[in-house]
Amino acid sequence: MVQDPFKPAKRVSGQRQDVWSIVNEAAEASNVKPMVNMGQGFFGYNPPDFVINAAKEALGRVECNQYSPTKGRPRLKKAIADAYSPFFDHQLNPDTEVTITTGANEGMLSAFMGFLEQGDEVIVFEPFFDQYISNIEMPGGKVVYVPLRPPKDGDKKTTSAGEWSLDLKELEAAINERTRMLVLNSPHNPIGKVFTKDELQAIGDLCVKHNIIILSDEVYDRLYYVPFTRIGNLSPEIARLTLTVGSAGKNFYATGWRVGFLIGPEHLIKYVSAAHTRICFSSVSPLQEATAVAFEQADAHNFWEDSKREMQAKVKLFCEVLDELDLPYSIPEGGYFVMVNLAKIKLPEGYDFPPHVASRPRDFQLSWFLIKEVGLAAIPPTEFFTDEHAYMAEDWLRFAVCKNDDVLELAKERMRGLRKYIQ
Amino acid sequence: MVQDPFKPAKRVSGQRQDVWSIVNEAAEASNVKPMVNMGQGFFGYNPPDFVINAAKEALGRVECNQYSPTKGRPRLKKAIADAYSPFFDHQLNPDTEVTITTGANEGMLSAFMGFLEQGDEVIVFEPFFDQYISNIEMPGGKVVYVPLRPPKDGDKKTTSAGEWSLDLKELEAAINERTRMLVLNSPHNPIGKVFTKDELQAIGDLCVKHNIIILSDEVYDRLYYVPFTRIGNLSPEIARLTLTVGSAGKNFYATGWRVGFLIGPEHLIKYVSAAHTRICFSSVSPLQEATAVAFEQADAHNFWEDSKREMQAKVKLFCEVLDELDLPYSIPEGGYFVMVNLAKIKLPEGYDFPPHVASRPRDFQLSWFLIKEVGLAAIPPTEFFTDEHAYMAEDWLRFAVCKNDDVLELAKERMRGLRKYIQ
Ligand SMILES: Cc1ncc(COP(=O)(O)O)c(C=O)c1O
Ligand SMILES: Cc1ncc(COP(=O)(O)O)c(C=O)c1O
Repeated sequence: MVQDPFKPAKRVSGQRQDVWSIVNEAAEASNVKPMVNMGQGFFGYNPPDFVINAAKEALGRVECNQYSPTKGRPRLKKAIADAYSPFFDHQLNPDTEVTITTGANEGMLSAFMGFLEQGDEVIVFEPFFDQYISNIEMPGGKVVYVPLRPPKDGDKKTTSAGEWSLDLKELEAAINERTRMLVLNSPHNPIGKVFTKDELQAIGDLCVKHNIIILSDEVYDRLYYVPFTRIGNLSPEIARLTLTVGSAGKNFYATGWRVGFLIGPEHLIKYVSAAHTRICFSSVSPLQEATAVAFEQADAHNFWEDSKREMQAKVKLFCEVLDELDLPYSIPEGGYFVMVNLAKIKLPEGYDFPPHVASRPRDFQLSWFLIKEVGLAAIPPTEFFTDEHAYMAEDWLRFAVCKNDDVLELAKERMRGLRKYIQ
Repeated sequence: MVQDPFKPAKRVSGQRQDVWSIVNEAAEASNVKPMVNMGQGFFGYNPPDFVINAAKEALGRVECNQYSPTKGRPRLKKAIADAYSPFFDHQLNPDTEVTITTGANEGMLSAFMGFLEQGDEVIVFEPFFDQYISNIEMPGGKVVYVPLRPPKDGDKKTTSAGEWSLDLKELEAAINERTRMLVLNSPHNPIGKVFTKDELQAIGDLCVKHNIIILSDEVYDRLYYVPFTRIGNLSPEIARLTLTVGSAGKNFYATGWRVGFLIGPEHLIKYVSAAHTRICFSSVSPLQEATAVAFEQADAHNFWEDSKREMQAKVKLFCEVLDELDLPYSIPEGGYFVMVNLAKIKLPEGYDFPPHVASRPRDFQLSWFLIKEVGLAAIPPTEFFTDEHAYMAEDWLRFAVCKNDDVLELAKERMRGLRKYIQ
């Protein structure tokens, strides 16, 4: 007989408090209300009207409220194939080269579930999107970490996110005969780096040499401010190993819609679909239909250009205060996160941090302090590093700028409250 | 180096064609168009207006389009706690005793992921909802099957779905020191059985004796035509071991919305939430909000009574043709599936079935034949049995009656086309 029937599985029993709940707790305790939230990467505004209207319209149709095919609604798969074919060297087949998932998140889990056996290794760069780790471990995979190192003088002067760098030798040394997959993220969360064509070619070549499946997380693919290359389009040899991940939630300002997709060759996509079927059965129907319309009509509404331009303006707006305070940051090449280096901030001696914050690297203390004393939330990026490499990011905080401009103005005002702690 | 990088994980590499694609294939090949589809259990009509309107309204609100808390929107958890507290012996705490999932399906996967370690055993009754099996196997669990046996004379006369019976000795014999969970489903898909209080007490007592977590799949909980008991409310000893699963999709005619929920004691719910966070991160926001309104307003709209009455009328409407043709069936005590015994049908000698249908039990051939010659789709239930016990259901087909009345009338007309094959 099982002695303790309530004993959780190891995969869910981790005890460390996650960053999101620490941030919320700090907000509760804050001296400054209301808190300005530049923490989590959700949008402070709605999807455009043509997308919202499509969702409302879909809700009126019986078939849009019932189960969709497990691989996704045909109309959405076709809309994505049409919208993405120009980025690849051939017309994508909507039935075999595209599959719909419940957000990019469950899409990546489906990819890991589709290919990993117990003990298979997956290479992940640090910092990483935190869900990768549990998603790899759930099917029994083992994560092997390779760090992206911050610019050497990133604590002294503002640098480009492109200067966070990968050591290719370190990457190759991490590969062995158990390596089955590599996760790439460009534009990168939290760094804002867009990998260059040369970097991607070098990574791709290594994967071809070692027969490694590339899972390319491109959820911020429409927000790039330097040339953006898709690794899945670099060569036929790389293409046959590459799954490209997208997120309608990120594309259309609707993170709560949970519509994601993967694009890739049939021999990979079919097992992603098979895993997705076993995980969620199918994804949300009316919002799949609305996403189809969104992709169909985005160009006509000039949506992609507008959204890129608007987001870049938000980056600029927020960074003004960093320049003003002479706080160094990493200028994003893509996405909507700004990494700010706060080495110059002197936290008051003996400041009373709760034990679970005091025991974490300095960025957790910076984050707590900023929320509590200044009323502005940002994310401590060491959450996205292994303990071994956390030191690299312990002076940084990640700010999400995907908020309304008045919120960003308020955030700037709050940032000025830091002035007295700057050395 | 990995030799074949495209080799899928064992968990997704099963080769047997699934029942849904066989049914679709038969529909393509059918001589009678359009096919009347009583196969898959989606609704042929829309959610009620007050629910659809709530969804449209939610789409207009920024916070309803962005990520929800991983455990679900507070308003929805409260609405469910309020709607379900009357069925339990205490006021449910929305923060600790309710969690929201991406459909009941991913909710059950989350429960298995929350508690199963490699090699742990889970008892499942046959016939089973097919997703249980992969959901148990994904975290490394082993399914142990116990059959529900059809009424002895179910091929000769119409019987009650309640007569499908569980052998308690067989159940106890299936329990050993690796047994961690038991899956129960009432009202039952596909049988339509509502387990009696005595049956549930006996099952619950066994689980208490052996410290087994009960996962009670009650997605058809508002559709019962005999008294319905919730095992989670039988005694405090049983309650502390029980997770109750619900589905807004089933409740409100919106299977494509992918909103499910689990109710249970905090010591179980918290690990379901933890697993759900790792699988989907969070569930679809605007439809969670609409589901909250749906639960809040259902009583005022007399929705539960209407929906039960309407569904029972649909059962009756369809069964008329079975009585007319003198085909025995199993009268559902709940849900929207009718199991019909077609032992009397003589399939033409040498009829040309495709090999993957010819090689399956007779119900697959009955299903294929019905679609192709008569233009009516129903599901072969041996798909939901192990090979060992498939013989029990090889003369039965499952018909979903959750369709518009005109469709049911057409279905009856199609059924009459079977008359010439009845012996
Ligand atoms: C890098 C990265 N990948 C994936 C996701 C998840 O996307 P989705 O909301 O579509 O699941 C996020 C969300 O923050 C992300 O930052
Ligand atoms: C018994 C049973 N459980 C669970 C489900 C899945 O419910 P959901 O659509 O909420 O995932 C179904 C759907 O057919 C079912 O029949």
